[in-house]
Amino acid sequence: MIYFDNASTHKPFDCVVKEINLFNEKHFFNPSALYKEGIDTSKIIERSRKIIADKLGVQSDEIYFTSSATEANNWALLNGFKNKKGNVVISQGEHASVFECGNLLKSKGVEVRWVKLKNDGTIDLEDLDKKIDNDTTLVSVIHASNETGAVNDIKLIGNLIKSKNVKTRFHSDGVAAFCKIDCINSALRDRGCDFYTISSHKVGGPKGVGALYINKKINIGPFIVGGGQERGMRSGTENTGAIIGFSKAVACSCWVHSESEQQNNLARQIHDYIKNTLTQNGWILNGSINNTGYILSLSNPNIKAEILMRLLAEDGILIGLGSACANKLSQNRILNALGATKAHIEGSIRLSFSPLNTMHEAKIVAQKIMEKQKILQGKSIK
Amino acid sequence: MIYFDNASTHKPFDCVVKEINLFNEKHFFNPSALYKEGIDTSKIIERSRKIIADKLGVQSDEIYFTSSATEANNWALLNGFKNKKGNVVISQGEHASVFECGNLLKSKGVEVRWVKLKNDGTIDLEDLDKKIDNDTTLVSVIHASNETGAVNDIKLIGNLIKSKNVKTRFHSDGVAAFCKIDCINSALRDRGCDFYTISSHKVGGPKGVGALYINKKINIGPFIVGGGQERGMRSGTENTGAIIGFSKAVACSCWVHSESEQQNNLARQIHDYIKNTLTQNGWILNGSINNTGYILSLSNPNIKAEILMRLLAEDGILIGLGSACANKLSQNRILNALGATKAHIEGSIRLSFSPLNTMHEAKIVAQKIMEKQKILQGKSIK
Repeated sequence: MIYFDNASTHKPFDCVVKEINLFNEKHFFNPSALYKEGIDTSKIIERSRKIIADKLGVQSDEIYFTSSATEANNWALLNGFKNKKGNVVISQGEHASVFECGNLLKSKGVEVRWVKLKNDGTIDLEDLDKKIDNDTTLVSVIHASNETGAVNDIKLIGNLIKSKNVKTRFHSDGVAAFCKIDCINSALRDRGCDFYTISSHKVGGPKGVGALYINKKINIGPFIVGGGQERGMRSGTENTGAIIGFSKAVACSCWVHSESEQQNNLARQIHDYIKNTLTQNGWILNGSINNTGYILSLSNPNIKAEILMRLLAEDGILIGLGSACANKLSQNRILNALGATKAHIEGSIRLSFSPLNTMHEAKIVAQKIMEKQKILQGKSIK
Repeated sequence: MIYFDNASTHKPFDCVVKEINLFNEKHFFNPSALYKEGIDTSKIIERSRKIIADKLGVQSDEIYFTSSATEANNWALLNGFKNKKGNVVISQGEHASVFECGNLLKSKGVEVRWVKLKNDGTIDLEDLDKKIDNDTTLVSVIHASNETGAVNDIKLIGNLIKSKNVKTRFHSDGVAAFCKIDCINSALRDRGCDFYTISSHKVGGPKGVGALYINKKINIGPFIVGGGQERGMRSGTENTGAIIGFSKAVACSCWVHSESEQQNNLARQIHDYIKNTLTQNGWILNGSINNTGYILSLSNPNIKAEILMRLLAEDGILIGLGSACANKLSQNRILNALGATKAHIEGSIRLSFSPLNTMHEAKIVAQKIMEKQKILQGKSIK
């Protein structure tokens, strides 16, 4: 089976699964317990926190583990915005978990201003500049699109926001960017970005854990109250095994550690090979050439992508149609924002790669897509 | 090692770990994905939901998976209470995750009325009756105390609440009761209870998953918004492996399935043996004889329990001092509510049992506690 729907969920890396099993066998203890076994477990969590903080170029006590990136996005959007008199500015290219927070805030009477996307899938910086004013309390712009892979320059955006209103808080959903582009060169280290969301199961870790970076200069209320875990900010017994697995996946050598690796990694080669092959055969690239290399969104208005997906699945090739986290409306939402027609949207596929995919798989998949495409377009197969 | 701090965290049952590993190997797919592998994963989640619903005697679509019981309690308390003009009634015997929600509501201007406990650790029904009026929108009473094991009759309490004000919603935290007493005979089936919280890692399942039962006649907003998982009520990619492990632990033959089993199970025998031995040697029972049998809280005002705990840990015996989910203040909070003195509180231990504990362990632990007690009281060891 060829799994080209990794933006939906990676299979956890083998080394991650091994690490979790080893940990769980020895360290099932509650990290809040006062005996040695509890304290040891607690120390291991802190080691995991440091691995993730280091990867982001921030401090350990700025990282809060959550149960998912969706939870982290809810936390930043719903609690990061405190002043009910202000407005919130959100890009049209956000994941459902940010988009729906925008809708929820709106239903509570908050003024939500949506920022347009450009055709290449990145945010329209001129429109962003227009939407921010003295009353803007929070801006949310996704780092890399989970649908097209298009990368926003969050360092530049952070500077733009702070120059317009130094009090405005800036949240970025980094799920599709984390470990896939060099995050240390981003806006986190120099505090242009105040909240940053990441997910474990998008980087080869287990499901059930994500994290929110919170700039330590920012005051924000807890998301879940109770026993006071996560320094009083996110209560609930720590999901220890998942946290350890998350940090193991992040530390894994599979991921990019510098800008040069980012340009030359295998995912980029796979991405470019399929993109080049299919765009020469009637497919249109959705989004920017400037993307993470891990997500490839293509459209062919002459076919129905859902049927293509099913035909490929019969041959053991799994691809996506858009964010698996959302219903079909969501996919329409992002491609709509890029100005796509109905036929274009219905003909769109999302391929997404993991470091474990190979060029051999890429060649098979490109070939198979072209074969199925001919069937769907009523042509004979050569 | 003898692990008598299971109310803090059980080690997951071996059959649970095996099931999770088997599942994860095959079903790492995102259950929202539209190909067969995603749909299959989604079906397995629904099977798990049914196992848990059946155990509670409710319908599958009344069960919502969360990341923890703490999250479920936050959801019920913070979203279950909608009318800002009303009051909320909460017992003094609640877990920190309910208690802190009460404090949070109070800080937002909501009138919170705290209900007294009786000396046996159960709620004072006369005081409860007095506190509920026409403006009471939500009542929260723990099913079994996580500190003393004392069991509240939530069927009776549900009837009392609804007879005072039929519109008042009733939440019960069932974490320390679920699978340990016969929940089907409780208030859930006849809808006296509207919200009921359960946890996986307290019943031999993995950490990172809990659930909230919501009576389907009740309207309540979602806790986390986004991709629309959990029927739009709790978004975020499902923590599939943990959910499967949770249901496996619940289905496990270790737990009580009827009232008669409840009376005669092994935990009850262990509980009674240690209780009888130690109360004949200067220890005082905290809470009721009418408890789950899984938790035993005892005090000896002549010793410092924290030192006893450390001495026992050196001999490979792990016991608790109170809820590991909370700091020491919390333990004071519950025992304070029972009218305990400072010396009584500082001399209190919490033993808690799993179905995997043995009578052999019980005898060793009772013996060791008496030995250490003599050391701490300055007497010579025989």
